[in-house]
Amino acid sequence: MLGLGLIGGSLVRAADQAGRKVWGATASDGTAAAARADGYHVDPTLDDALRRAAAEDALVVLGMPLPNVPEALRRVHAVAPRCRLTDVVSVKAAMATAVRRHAPSARYVGGHPMAGTTESGWAAGDAALYRGARWVVAADDGADAEGWSDVAELAWACGSLVVPAAAAEHDAAVGRISHLPHLLAAVLAAVASPGGDDQVGTLALSLAASSFGDGTRVAGTRPELVLAMCEGNRDGLLAAVDDALGRLGAARGSLASTGGLAATVNAGYAARGRWADVREVGPVTVARDTPMAELRELGRRGAALSGWS
Amino acid sequence: MLGLGLIGGSLVRAADQAGRKVWGATASDGTAAAARADGYHVDPTLDDALRRAAAEDALVVLGMPLPNVPEALRRVHAVAPRCRLTDVVSVKAAMATAVRRHAPSARYVGGHPMAGTTESGWAAGDAALYRGARWVVAADDGADAEGWSDVAELAWACGSLVVPAAAAEHDAAVGRISHLPHLLAAVLAAVASPGGDDQVGTLALSLAASSFGDGTRVAGTRPELVLAMCEGNRDGLLAAVDDALGRLGAARGSLASTGGLAATVNAGYAARGRWADVREVGPVTVARDTPMAELRELGRRGAALSGWS
Repeated sequence: MLGLGLIGGSLVRAADQAGRKVWGATASDGTAAAARADGYHVDPTLDDALRRAAAEDALVVLGMPLPNVPEALRRVHAVAPRCRLTDVVSVKAAMATAVRRHAPSARYVGGHPMAGTTESGWAAGDAALYRGARWVVAADDGADAEGWSDVAELAWACGSLVVPAAAAEHDAAVGRISHLPHLLAAVLAAVASPGGDDQVGTLALSLAASSFGDGTRVAGTRPELVLAMCEGNRDGLLAAVDDALGRLGAARGSLASTGGLAATVNAGYAARGRWADVREVGPVTVARDTPMAELRELGRRGAALSGWS
Repeated sequence: MLGLGLIGGSLVRAADQAGRKVWGATASDGTAAAARADGYHVDPTLDDALRRAAAEDALVVLGMPLPNVPEALRRVHAVAPRCRLTDVVSVKAAMATAVRRHAPSARYVGGHPMAGTTESGWAAGDAALYRGARWVVAADDGADAEGWSDVAELAWACGSLVVPAAAAEHDAAVGRISHLPHLLAAVLAAVASPGGDDQVGTLALSLAASSFGDGTRVAGTRPELVLAMCEGNRDGLLAAVDDALGRLGAARGSLASTGGLAATVNAGYAARGRWADVREVGPVTVARDTPMAELRELGRRGAALSGWS
């Protein structure tokens, strides 16, 4: 496990609990000391961890913000060029591009567990973070079936359900349901409290209750993490923002002209209801040799995999 | 208490627990039966409840959606024209206008407890709903000081803190921190699941986790309640929507041109932090004869009142 923040640190704990042999590396001496104090093996350097991965044919997991990925991939290419490789980074097309460029001979299959909190760092990690979460495993044509199985089995070992998806469709989806929520939360918080000499602002903040609190919760996430995630998915997020601007603009026009917001509010209510319906569908199993195109189609229909049939 | 939904029903329970004599009326026979079964007094008609209020000089509280307010006010004017009157409706300028038009001789001071859930109806009511909540009491020039004290004392009896505000400033504030969150939640839900033949949509919903869940929670509120609230505050909401459109458009432009979102994300993070700071300030007390202008100024600075000094 390269990177031992909230996401990597939780994965180390979860995989360890599942009985897997796990070791890690981190650029932070403080994090390394904390992880060792909790009883986990942390190699002195990234290269040490990668050398051992190459020797044992271990699955290498990248768990750092996207801007730090190229440097890690260069070390992979230098030390463990043919390793089995996955990641837990929140964008998949940019990750695949980076791997092709910096570690082209690694046996890479991208991953993205849909889990997190507004906390960050090793201490915030939790073996239970991935329990019941959806874990996307990239299922583009040409993906190595053995590598795909490795990543799916890691996800299952951590208690997650696997959702197969093409990298581009993953990015479009998370642009809508993860990155846009972060952007709207930031906008909402700033509208409530524009700062400067705005007098209503403090009154507004003092009155803000649960609808504001929930709507802005993720605006409390460390900005560098939000930026790495959102800026790394420019295309997926732009499409989602444009849709949101169109819908909000239409609502504005309707409110100003007829005074009515029924179309907007009813569409949101129906969509929220569809979410509940989609999440109620139980997991399914698939045959181990299911073709990538079939796996992607399952993901598109909202299916989540709990294991091999 | 006229209207026994979530808000009115909770107020009846809270005021009763505080030792006040409470009676209610509702247009719904089912609600009346449920409230009576729970041991509360519900008059057969609104007029009966108002006649008793006139006889006992009780404080009449309007607790129905804004579209139903004019008819209730006409009954007030017919049966208890000089009664002490307040409300728990989420817009204050439109309420004041309606009272001036339909019940001009009532001794009216507007109120708005900032509490709620996505549930609705008598059964969802809870005596604890208002505990720790902020309760706006309208402090426009000319407000009757005795009526103002009545409403503040009712709020305190229910466990709330009182925030004095001009009706127009209240509406601007709640447009930002309550009505805009509802609109953005609806937009976010619809972007994630636009319906029709969108294939990513089901994938997106199946991956949606806590950032989407929190950001769309209030989109699950009954649409007619959201519409009554948002459409009733057209001016306050339009200003907030325009600010949001400007900020989201600026983020879009920055993401498309430079790829950067730092200005947006940092502003949101700072604003969310200011909210925590504002909410940490402890309550204050005021003298019973504090002028309305001074009370409003306290509210503008984020103060919440816990009682008389």
